[in-house]
Amino acid sequence: MKRLAAYTAYIEEHLQKVRVPKKPDLLYDPFRYSLTIGGKRIRPMLTLLSAEMFGIDREKALPQALSVEVFHNFTLIHDDIMDEAPLRRNKVTIHEKWNTNIGILSGDAMLIEAFKLLSDIDPAQLPEALALFNQTAIEVCKGQQFDMDFEAREDVSVHEYIEMIRLKTSVLLGSALRLGAIVAGASEEDKQAVYLFGQHIGIAFQIQDDILDLYADPEKFGKQIGGDIIANKKTLLYLIAVNKASKNQYAILRRLRDVEDLEMKIARTRELFDHLKVREACQAHMEGHFEMAKQALEHVSVPKEKKEILVGLAEFLMKREN
Amino acid sequence: MKRLAAYTAYIEEHLQKVRVPKKPDLLYDPFRYSLTIGGKRIRPMLTLLSAEMFGIDREKALPQALSVEVFHNFTLIHDDIMDEAPLRRNKVTIHEKWNTNIGILSGDAMLIEAFKLLSDIDPAQLPEALALFNQTAIEVCKGQQFDMDFEAREDVSVHEYIEMIRLKTSVLLGSALRLGAIVAGASEEDKQAVYLFGQHIGIAFQIQDDILDLYADPEKFGKQIGGDIIANKKTLLYLIAVNKASKNQYAILRRLRDVEDLEMKIARTRELFDHLKVREACQAHMEGHFEMAKQALEHVSVPKEKKEILVGLAEFLMKREN
Repeated sequence: MKRLAAYTAYIEEHLQKVRVPKKPDLLYDPFRYSLTIGGKRIRPMLTLLSAEMFGIDREKALPQALSVEVFHNFTLIHDDIMDEAPLRRNKVTIHEKWNTNIGILSGDAMLIEAFKLLSDIDPAQLPEALALFNQTAIEVCKGQQFDMDFEAREDVSVHEYIEMIRLKTSVLLGSALRLGAIVAGASEEDKQAVYLFGQHIGIAFQIQDDILDLYADPEKFGKQIGGDIIANKKTLLYLIAVNKASKNQYAILRRLRDVEDLEMKIARTRELFDHLKVREACQAHMEGHFEMAKQALEHVSVPKEKKEILVGLAEFLMKREN
Repeated sequence: MKRLAAYTAYIEEHLQKVRVPKKPDLLYDPFRYSLTIGGKRIRPMLTLLSAEMFGIDREKALPQALSVEVFHNFTLIHDDIMDEAPLRRNKVTIHEKWNTNIGILSGDAMLIEAFKLLSDIDPAQLPEALALFNQTAIEVCKGQQFDMDFEAREDVSVHEYIEMIRLKTSVLLGSALRLGAIVAGASEEDKQAVYLFGQHIGIAFQIQDDILDLYADPEKFGKQIGGDIIANKKTLLYLIAVNKASKNQYAILRRLRDVEDLEMKIARTRELFDHLKVREACQAHMEGHFEMAKQALEHVSVPKEKKEILVGLAEFLMKREN
């Protein structure tokens, strides 16, 4: 979407201007590197679009938009250490490019910088914005811990999984929108509505991630298909499969985890998933959250045409193929 | 000091009451563990004493006092990971008791909790308190990075070293006092004066740490004497020795770093330090900062008797033997 691309460019431009000291190099070089790796900048875009929807210039919510993006990048740095991820968006991760200590400390600095950016706000709005940010930040940590806990558990329910992704990724999208609404002085009902919109979009987005990992068009996906199966990740696909599987099918699923021929591992798992109609069940979850998101947005008390760009963004996210 | 012990007890009591959720266990068990390891609770004590000196009940500055202590504990958790420290105050460190990932994430959660505690303040005071906290937090990160940088450098100056300890440990003491003053509504001059008091006390305290490591009474010290020499740490003692050494003496110092007989390594290094009067030079630095601290406190516009307990605390810290 061309209109959205202009927002990404605007955010990029201002992220480069975030005033970062030069020294110590090893604290701030990774900081800058992290902010140049790119991405769609969805979160800060949500803050700006929300502020505009409620009738103020996007500039007014810019520090909060940048704050959300810097916070998001802090979580990526620390998560990549915890997951021992060598790459992020095809670039070397910070703990690989430098080392783990540098990753920990520059991540800490980014978290603090996020608070600093957030504070650049009308003092009357600071208590509310900060309370939201504190709550969101701690929820994101909880989500990450649940995610790590789940790796060691065999009995994760679909409900627990959705709650985990809600905490780990979706509350930040909700808060990004809510921050824009706070700066714009929106009503409590409207603030709650955009928060829910963001949260459901976030959950739908995350479920779609799980689906795409196995069912994307390989030509458009840009990554290896079936990466989650290779890594034995407990995605929603897997959890729904476990739920629907007979005792016998469950035993097969478990055995497939140890298969060393990766092509066969992916093919056999996918066959079983297809047989159990796992993809359709995931799709239904995703569409349910997408519907709830749209409903929440309908409750926002601004003219319909002012919501169009957010609806467009949501649809763009839902239709993505990578 | 008996009067100070009552403050420690008061802080302990309220630290145990910090409302920490139960789940996820692996996020919050380390959090609670970290807060029970103890210590003298100097930082929150400074916040409370400052608030009282400026005429308000200590209860009013309690959330900010706890915030400073929780922040301090966050830094200990992450620093212990970076330093690969197995013990902290004779207890197993979090990354050793659990693992590094748990240490990173529960540290992050503590940093966020510190912001949450800080926010429990009169909204009119929040912008100032938060700005101070943001600045201090980032300075502490910078100090830690400089500390790590110095490990790999041979040309660290005494000035750079003092600036590093100022950032890494002393600004937090200054801010602890300043937060109490902010809550009490003290004047700008008084806020600046207590900040400087704390900062100089912090620097003096840290220098004394370096001195005690080699020159403490072994019976009272409770740790191995000469640990910094064994670890080839660039303490103020070492840097001053390098400064004063002849070319020949410097070569000896460098060779001593690789000596494997630890008793001999410590004894020979100490001989050289003694010969160069390194201890006296360190002592002079320490006393200088102690004097500057006392001078700063004299500028505070409250009756002398209200400052006595802070003077007492400073003297207690300076006279410690471990």
